[in-house]
Amino acid sequence: MQGFKNEFIKIILAAQTEICAALEAVDAGKKFSLENWHRPEGGGGITRIIEGGNVFEKAGVNTSQVHGVLPQSMMDYLGITNNIFFAVGISLVLHPKNPFAPTVHANYRYFELYNDAQEITHFWFGGGSDLTPYYLFEEDAIHFHETLKNACDKYDAAFYPTFKQQCDAYFFNQHRSEARGIGGIFFDRINTITAQNTSFCFDFVRHLAGTFLNSYLPIINKRKEMPYNTENKNWQEIRRGRYVEFNLLHDKGTLFGLKTNGRIESIFMSLPPTVQWHYDVKPEPNSAEEKLLNALKTKREWIKT
Amino acid sequence: MQGFKNEFIKIILAAQTEICAALEAVDAGKKFSLENWHRPEGGGGITRIIEGGNVFEKAGVNTSQVHGVLPQSMMDYLGITNNIFFAVGISLVLHPKNPFAPTVHANYRYFELYNDAQEITHFWFGGGSDLTPYYLFEEDAIHFHETLKNACDKYDAAFYPTFKQQCDAYFFNQHRSEARGIGGIFFDRINTITAQNTSFCFDFVRHLAGTFLNSYLPIINKRKEMPYNTENKNWQEIRRGRYVEFNLLHDKGTLFGLKTNGRIESIFMSLPPTVQWHYDVKPEPNSAEEKLLNALKTKREWIKT
Repeated sequence: MQGFKNEFIKIILAAQTEICAALEAVDAGKKFSLENWHRPEGGGGITRIIEGGNVFEKAGVNTSQVHGVLPQSMMDYLGITNNIFFAVGISLVLHPKNPFAPTVHANYRYFELYNDAQEITHFWFGGGSDLTPYYLFEEDAIHFHETLKNACDKYDAAFYPTFKQQCDAYFFNQHRSEARGIGGIFFDRINTITAQNTSFCFDFVRHLAGTFLNSYLPIINKRKEMPYNTENKNWQEIRRGRYVEFNLLHDKGTLFGLKTNGRIESIFMSLPPTVQWHYDVKPEPNSAEEKLLNALKTKREWIKT
Repeated sequence: MQGFKNEFIKIILAAQTEICAALEAVDAGKKFSLENWHRPEGGGGITRIIEGGNVFEKAGVNTSQVHGVLPQSMMDYLGITNNIFFAVGISLVLHPKNPFAPTVHANYRYFELYNDAQEITHFWFGGGSDLTPYYLFEEDAIHFHETLKNACDKYDAAFYPTFKQQCDAYFFNQHRSEARGIGGIFFDRINTITAQNTSFCFDFVRHLAGTFLNSYLPIINKRKEMPYNTENKNWQEIRRGRYVEFNLLHDKGTLFGLKTNGRIESIFMSLPPTVQWHYDVKPEPNSAEEKLLNALKTKREWIKT
């Protein structure tokens, strides 16, 4: 079986460079650091971070290529019986300073499994992106979802509704019966969907990675300079606590990184820079804060499908 | 089989009242809130919280009594085949404002399992306490461990070394190869150890709960007014991030609460009020911050056993 390893490595490295350059332009003058790390068991990554920017309080745009032998717990989790793997991906989380600007997460990844003769037995793609606002601007949610739907529709009209629903199901803080944010799309283990075109899924994921900036830049540019007060910032930090809860309690990407001895500081770039937990916080009735909570408590279609 | 349910409920309610009163005296004038909550599936608890004190930035001293049917995942985790349970305990976490004052956690609990005829088939006690400093004062670690050892030694000379070792093993952030703090004692599933004295373990746990204040009050009183600067506070908040990581990634008490539909806001009283995560923070060589890290990276005996 022929895989997409080398082509995928190329597109995620190019996406990392392009996305970092565009975000540096948004956060005028701030530059991403760059760190190469090596994984003792095989592979490594490039971690690029901004901290303390005027726009991004913390932003990470990371790529990694790791390979080796999966631990039994990950084999059980993935439901697979061979354990020689290769995984490559780009993962980004942007935490803006301004509480009216939403956090965004995106991830595009490719996975191969091999038999003892080093032949590929399985491969698949995964990925998606989702938006986590601290204050709800419906136009932002609509723009984000519309961009994703347009990108999906170029490939298959069933993609957006299916992957949107999977995103709602995945980015859900079960212990609080509350969505992490207003969603986006999420897909995993897709491979060759049409026999006529073996690179169909590869092309789809490449296209998605190429539209990430379109989905987010108009939003951050609209929100990054909105005036805010201490109460708005406190609310953002309290809500960031829910982001931490999701990533440490539920996120399978974090779990995969920890179980495969990934680099902790690169995995935890997703954690927000400043966070608060207070006892039993309840927003004022009919406040903007309550409006957000209501949106996260009910499943919602942001655009017509 | 005769259990200790009613006696244990009495001692934890008395301990909650006594500990809250003593902590209010430490944080002159600040009063614990009191909230009764009910669990839909059976039982409930009393949650007592201080937030924004002069001494305690956040402190929770909670009791709960819950009963009902365990989910399959908890039965598997506990390795048991019957699922009708009763659990009662007191759990406290104190997060001082002053970065030179350590966070402390203590928990004393009792568990019963029943057969279909409502007869007790198993019971056990669990508990312990551990100290999490942000700056290391060896005299504080020694005082804390000495108090615990003295309390243990009244019952069995093997208790302190065994339970100290279990604490080191339990409160360990595996993903960072680093202890959460300087330890204490931890024990689980102890019941009747001497056939001659069926209340031996009950008496032991009651005695421990009664010595908690002795283990911590001298430390907090010594540290609560030490002068500190912004760098000290930032370091405390970064280290509090490790506390969050432990509680959400590894802590079985948190897991038990979430799996048994405990009250989220009571379970998460353990999470610190303000927390920071920055990329790849490394303390200065030979700094007080590095001294703490070194102590957490190596297993250590604080007192002679």
